[in-house]
Amino acid sequence: MPGRIQSIERAAAVLRLLAGGNRGLSLGEISRSLELPKGTALGILRTLQHVGFVEQDSGSSHYRLGGGVLSLGTRYLDGNELRARALNWADSLAGRSGESVRIGTLHKHQVLIVHHVFRPDDSRQILDVGTLLPLHATALGKVLLAFDPLATPEYYAEGGALESYTPRTITSFDDLTAQLSLARASGWAADVEELVEGEVSIAAPIRDRRGMTVGAIGVRGAVERLCEDGKPDMGQVSYVRDAARAVSRDLGATPW
Amino acid sequence: MPGRIQSIERAAAVLRLLAGGNRGLSLGEISRSLELPKGTALGILRTLQHVGFVEQDSGSSHYRLGGGVLSLGTRYLDGNELRARALNWADSLAGRSGESVRIGTLHKHQVLIVHHVFRPDDSRQILDVGTLLPLHATALGKVLLAFDPLATPEYYAEGGALESYTPRTITSFDDLTAQLSLARASGWAADVEELVEGEVSIAAPIRDRRGMTVGAIGVRGAVERLCEDGKPDMGQVSYVRDAARAVSRDLGATPW
Repeated sequence: MPGRIQSIERAAAVLRLLAGGNRGLSLGEISRSLELPKGTALGILRTLQHVGFVEQDSGSSHYRLGGGVLSLGTRYLDGNELRARALNWADSLAGRSGESVRIGTLHKHQVLIVHHVFRPDDSRQILDVGTLLPLHATALGKVLLAFDPLATPEYYAEGGALESYTPRTITSFDDLTAQLSLARASGWAADVEELVEGEVSIAAPIRDRRGMTVGAIGVRGAVERLCEDGKPDMGQVSYVRDAARAVSRDLGATPW
Repeated sequence: MPGRIQSIERAAAVLRLLAGGNRGLSLGEISRSLELPKGTALGILRTLQHVGFVEQDSGSSHYRLGGGVLSLGTRYLDGNELRARALNWADSLAGRSGESVRIGTLHKHQVLIVHHVFRPDDSRQILDVGTLLPLHATALGKVLLAFDPLATPEYYAEGGALESYTPRTITSFDDLTAQLSLARASGWAADVEELVEGEVSIAAPIRDRRGMTVGAIGVRGAVERLCEDGKPDMGQVSYVRDAARAVSRDLGATPW
């Protein structure tokens, strides 16, 4: 059984470090952050530059992500079966709900957005595809946690405490566990201003032919539109659950 | 001077291989394609899986790209200064031209699309961001070749012959060299059904504060709309060149 290869793990750490900031980093900053000797860091950076995953600014000599990672990301989306099957259902959910629709999967203790349909109102919106969201503060994340048999409390606790984003973020493990039980019982989850003030999201699980939850689909929008008396609008909940069942059926979860 | 690190180069080759197909690959296929012993390939795959760049299908055990590459790609876009400066100008060009607008940069002998504005007509369109296009058969590519001092004939000849996509693709180096001279003289380039039959593209260079060409912006659309008597419509050319100058000015190429 071959073990993991240290230089590849280090290269991935360099890429994540460069992805974390909004500006390029110097060789010194990279070697200090990752506690690597400068010569080691330079060998990794040169190799990553050669393969197109890192670029060096010709002025500052700072390193930043290279175009190769963008083309890989696009190819990941092209090959994502969940996304391919869900495209039309996501459009239809956006039409029915009048809100923006997102599809997410579990990735390294976060929600990875693999598809995003804009709210159908011609307003200027930012594409969320490729964004990572916290599990405990989003409807998509709660659904993924609730319906994933591997996602124990230890799973979402990795990294310590539940980070707070608004006064309404759930930061107690007991409260989160209770919400996940409720989600399992009801078949959907919501976040009410738990990630962004004024924003609500509602989501339901997508299952594949083995009955495994492989993703979640949901709407997100203003609290004034998606909530009534502080509770998610049940009409919207039904649209979301309809869409989740339709995608699941397309993935082979049920033949009817 | 540290050299390049073989295991990182091999990991990149595995990722490119997985990106090349539309389905997952088995360990045997990967090791054969890259001429690596199975044990070596398995060590690389395990490590890439651990860092989230590769996923393994639980049914077929085939390997495919993982979600980690998508989030890196998104972060690359977030940090791309050309794209950030060009967003509004690209929207405005789409509005004036009535066509779809794309911005590309040179990446590994290809055009990497870093921004794409849909044609403003509510038709269903596919997002091209992250797509790689051939240099010699696209207006964006010709502009990048023509205005890049490093892009010699040897540069675009890497990989041998100029591939043909339609009967109108330029496959002679002499013809291409002549077109590039013309592009340098006139400040823009076009492709008339050279990549896709029925499609035309027109592009102009974007320069930065050092006067270097860092990208190209252009429109793409049906030959019936973008050409007159087989020649690119000069009104559209003027819109493209206006946009390219505006982005260049935002990047500091000129103060006026």
